[in-house]
Amino acid sequence: MRSDDDRLSQTFAALANSTRRAILARLAKREATVNELAEPFNLSLQAISRHIKVLEQAGLITQGQNAQYRPCTIDATPLKEVSKWTEQYRPIWEARFDRMENFINQLNKKEKDNE
Amino acid sequence: MRSDDDRLSQTFAALANSTRRAILARLAKREATVNELAEPFNLSLQAISRHIKVLEQAGLITQGQNAQYRPCTIDATPLKEVSKWTEQYRPIWEARFDRMENFINQLNKKEKDNE
Repeated sequence: MRSDDDRLSQTFAALANSTRRAILARLAKREATVNELAEPFNLSLQAISRHIKVLEQAGLITQGQNAQYRPCTIDATPLKEVSKWTEQYRPIWEARFDRMENFINQLNKKEKDNE
Repeated sequence: MRSDDDRLSQTFAALANSTRRAILARLAKREATVNELAEPFNLSLQAISRHIKVLEQAGLITQGQNAQYRPCTIDATPLKEVSKWTEQYRPIWEARFDRMENFINQLNKKEKDNE
């Protein structure tokens, strides 16, 4: 059995590619076959199939079992885990921007004082 | 110049490793030197340095310039981008769980009707 940590690593690795993220964005609208996915991306069926396999192994998409027409469907469950992990750090990036805002306000105040 | 898409890919790739995520969790508490980071992870300085380099290239940490004491500091800015990207899919995972909840409610109702 894979640990949560391993699954999260696999999800992040699957997302570390702009074509795979574009495939997910396309599937967020509606399901699509491999042929339908290959066309707009101007990629070979082989290349698209490789990306689909990575996404499927990470649990980000599922593929229908009908041999003739096997549409790919997005499964956003792993993205919920990514969101949960990332949100832990929200206080840090918000503090950072707060500090930056303070800094900019101080600069503006200084400029005003010098006018 | 790197595109937003390339930067996001680099961030995801840096996060696709549990040791690197553990380093970020450690640095979220307070800054630390490479030596301080190496100890709890039971890794060689060389291995930790490699992870730090990946995190630094992804903009997730910065390292002080003082040659004697170069503490690593977390920079959560790329995580804000990850959060922004991931949140686009929130309606999908929430709909999924809504549907699952409906499904479970229907099952419970059926069981009750059959009692």
